[in-house]
Amino acid sequence: MDHMSPEEFRQHGHAMVDWLADYMTSLPERSVLHSAAPGSIREQLPAAAPESGESMQAMMSDVESVLLPGITHWQHPGWFAFFPANATGPSILGELLSAGLGVQGMMWDTSPAATELEERVMDWLVGLLGLPDSWRNEQGPGGGVIQSTASDATHTALVVARHRASKKGHSPSKLVVYASSQAHSSVEKGARVAGFEHIRLLATDDAFALQPEALEQAIANDTAAGLVPCVVISAVGATGTGAVDPVDAIGRITERHGLWHHVDAAWAGSAMVLPEHRHLQPGLDRVDSYVFNPHKWLFVNFDCSAFWVADRTALLDAMSVLPPYLRNAATESGQVTDYRDWHVPLGRRFRSLKLWFVLRHYGRDGLRKHISEHIAWADWVADQVRTSPHLELVTEPVLSLVCLQHIDGADATRALVTRVNATGHSAVTGSTLPDGTPFLRVAIGQANTRFEDVERLWSVLNTPVA
Amino acid sequence: MDHMSPEEFRQHGHAMVDWLADYMTSLPERSVLHSAAPGSIREQLPAAAPESGESMQAMMSDVESVLLPGITHWQHPGWFAFFPANATGPSILGELLSAGLGVQGMMWDTSPAATELEERVMDWLVGLLGLPDSWRNEQGPGGGVIQSTASDATHTALVVARHRASKKGHSPSKLVVYASSQAHSSVEKGARVAGFEHIRLLATDDAFALQPEALEQAIANDTAAGLVPCVVISAVGATGTGAVDPVDAIGRITERHGLWHHVDAAWAGSAMVLPEHRHLQPGLDRVDSYVFNPHKWLFVNFDCSAFWVADRTALLDAMSVLPPYLRNAATESGQVTDYRDWHVPLGRRFRSLKLWFVLRHYGRDGLRKHISEHIAWADWVADQVRTSPHLELVTEPVLSLVCLQHIDGADATRALVTRVNATGHSAVTGSTLPDGTPFLRVAIGQANTRFEDVERLWSVLNTPVA
Repeated sequence: MDHMSPEEFRQHGHAMVDWLADYMTSLPERSVLHSAAPGSIREQLPAAAPESGESMQAMMSDVESVLLPGITHWQHPGWFAFFPANATGPSILGELLSAGLGVQGMMWDTSPAATELEERVMDWLVGLLGLPDSWRNEQGPGGGVIQSTASDATHTALVVARHRASKKGHSPSKLVVYASSQAHSSVEKGARVAGFEHIRLLATDDAFALQPEALEQAIANDTAAGLVPCVVISAVGATGTGAVDPVDAIGRITERHGLWHHVDAAWAGSAMVLPEHRHLQPGLDRVDSYVFNPHKWLFVNFDCSAFWVADRTALLDAMSVLPPYLRNAATESGQVTDYRDWHVPLGRRFRSLKLWFVLRHYGRDGLRKHISEHIAWADWVADQVRTSPHLELVTEPVLSLVCLQHIDGADATRALVTRVNATGHSAVTGSTLPDGTPFLRVAIGQANTRFEDVERLWSVLNTPVA
Repeated sequence: MDHMSPEEFRQHGHAMVDWLADYMTSLPERSVLHSAAPGSIREQLPAAAPESGESMQAMMSDVESVLLPGITHWQHPGWFAFFPANATGPSILGELLSAGLGVQGMMWDTSPAATELEERVMDWLVGLLGLPDSWRNEQGPGGGVIQSTASDATHTALVVARHRASKKGHSPSKLVVYASSQAHSSVEKGARVAGFEHIRLLATDDAFALQPEALEQAIANDTAAGLVPCVVISAVGATGTGAVDPVDAIGRITERHGLWHHVDAAWAGSAMVLPEHRHLQPGLDRVDSYVFNPHKWLFVNFDCSAFWVADRTALLDAMSVLPPYLRNAATESGQVTDYRDWHVPLGRRFRSLKLWFVLRHYGRDGLRKHISEHIAWADWVADQVRTSPHLELVTEPVLSLVCLQHIDGADATRALVTRVNATGHSAVTGSTLPDGTPFLRVAIGQANTRFEDVERLWSVLNTPVA
């Protein structure tokens, strides 16, 4: 088959937009979770690519008949599982525009608009979320960049911290990373990938937060043992129960000991559009790096992870490599930002477009409205649980995350997770506390969710387990 | 502003598709390179996000007036710079579908279709490119996965190799990475990020290829010095001049010494749709990992980097971390693939859709036709250079890459690069040879390029420099 002409693209593009608009409309009628058995999708797909080209109609027919039964509908209004991964209209249009322009933003010179829009919208986020002004690209010494995922950003922070320690003469084999036992798996994984051999996942307090005294003690123990404490990773809204580590107290410790302090606010960071929740992350001026995911709860489709460093020097020192085929006058002038030096990948998409579209579509007031609604609905669920004869909270709700269990114990809680997920109209995630106790997570924040959807979930939760 | 309804998405989506179709049509009339000065885009953008929501019309107006002057048109038919980064119709539609479905493919259970389609299309590529059958997901012990960029994939290979060596008791500070001086910057960067302290970029032969004897000697020297040789990275089509390292000879060396052998065929890998070029990468059955980028020359839009390992055990051993909130019955059954264990990120887009659309749209015959055309056009350019009174090849062309210089020396070659890039209708990249000699790269492979565009480029190259 030949290349698709612009006119053919126009025709197929219109059909795809219509298909997606119909899909979006159909979501409430669909079963949230997939119905596939292992291998059931793969076995319907041919073993080899076709010899001759096929039509878009043939492919979309297979999307409907082969793929859709194996799709979990993350955009369903009854999505209360994991955390939200919102794909809203303006973000999808931004992704489409980015794909259609097809530019590479690896350096300023390979498409200045891609770099300068990203610098600007990352600065918009600093203002929108009340982050330290010194993190603005325009101001410095810090700066912000879009990375793919919080896993990538946390890994980057770990590499920069390791690099800084190495330059001080410390062998990587002696370096230690600290986080709570509730830290996201990306902390352990990122640390292992970055070559750390000592990873301390510390026991938490009753609210599942890192205890500064335990951190101090661990640092003292490791120092006494001849190791070199290097990085602490705090969570603001950890994945399991939404735990919030004491960022300010931890920052005082890391500052005193010269450790790198990275904050993972992947999910909860979006809530900082509301000033009344910023008390959850005090003392950010003492933090070395910070990540949150607009692709979770700020209505930008995956992937769009916002990463800041308080001082870009250490980042660039660890990440810059300049081969001859990338040399150019703009870079050598020192007047521009080359984002290739801010992460592992060289090539990069024009992801700031979708972030820009979302921030402009909603406006600051729209974002505040939707996020405060989600938090209010979670408060409503928590209030219902508090008065329920057969449910109880496992911890106080954090923002829009409610964690609960059945009073009849582990089996009843597991049965409740199964029951919700069998309804077709709602989905939740079951997890376990550090002591092994199972619990049920209700994560509110899907853009399509209305209060009626929350009520419908509650009607299932509120029925006694047989 | 409220969320965009499906009907509003339909309306704005149609408008965006029309805008893109018009943009595609306009490309030949546009100037390939941007006309922006540092800061000129940023200063036209407000300093803060708007308080109230704005219309898509307002945003698209700014795209046209503010952003487009700062766009480098990578999809222009006169794009001969860097390597191509094609964004074809079927791939854009696949990206749009992926964004619209908004599913997370981090685990099989979070959307089985995303995992199983990816397993299948990666197996399609094995057949299409003549790669070892043992790399098929369906067969094993190898397997393939889509990563974001070749930088990510090469970094992953380095981490796995380092992990394997650590388990044998070797300290990472003793491990050595080898590649040629022409290896892509991602090799040095990936090795530094992965914590390697010893990186040998070896001198090349006259065709800029790694010399097996030099590799043997370097391994012997390092071993004698108490270091531990660990990884060799071969290039099939290196970025500068398209150099092809002797994969088979290197594989015999790495096999004998127990080193990890990673092959970077980021650009040239696509040419393997043509069996007559597979002699460029003999002995792949002795390779441990391999990467090529469908997002360069196989007509899939960025990002889509195809990465294989010959044995998935080592990869999974280095990358698997399983927290309680990701546990599920499908994973525990061992019957499914969880791609989160195949790279650093946890979250992942449904990127196999665009690869599937492209392979089905073109068919195997369409891909062979377009790629062989590009190679034939490069051969034509090379033939013109050979008979030109003022130009000469700096090395024999490799596939669709022609590297040339002006016979009057460095200044004349640099002036030629400047002259081409000032035409508005064509763009090339200037680089330098290891000895510092500047040269001009003509990389053919943009999907919109026709032979007339190549002839127009040649008409500029073929005029004596004043």
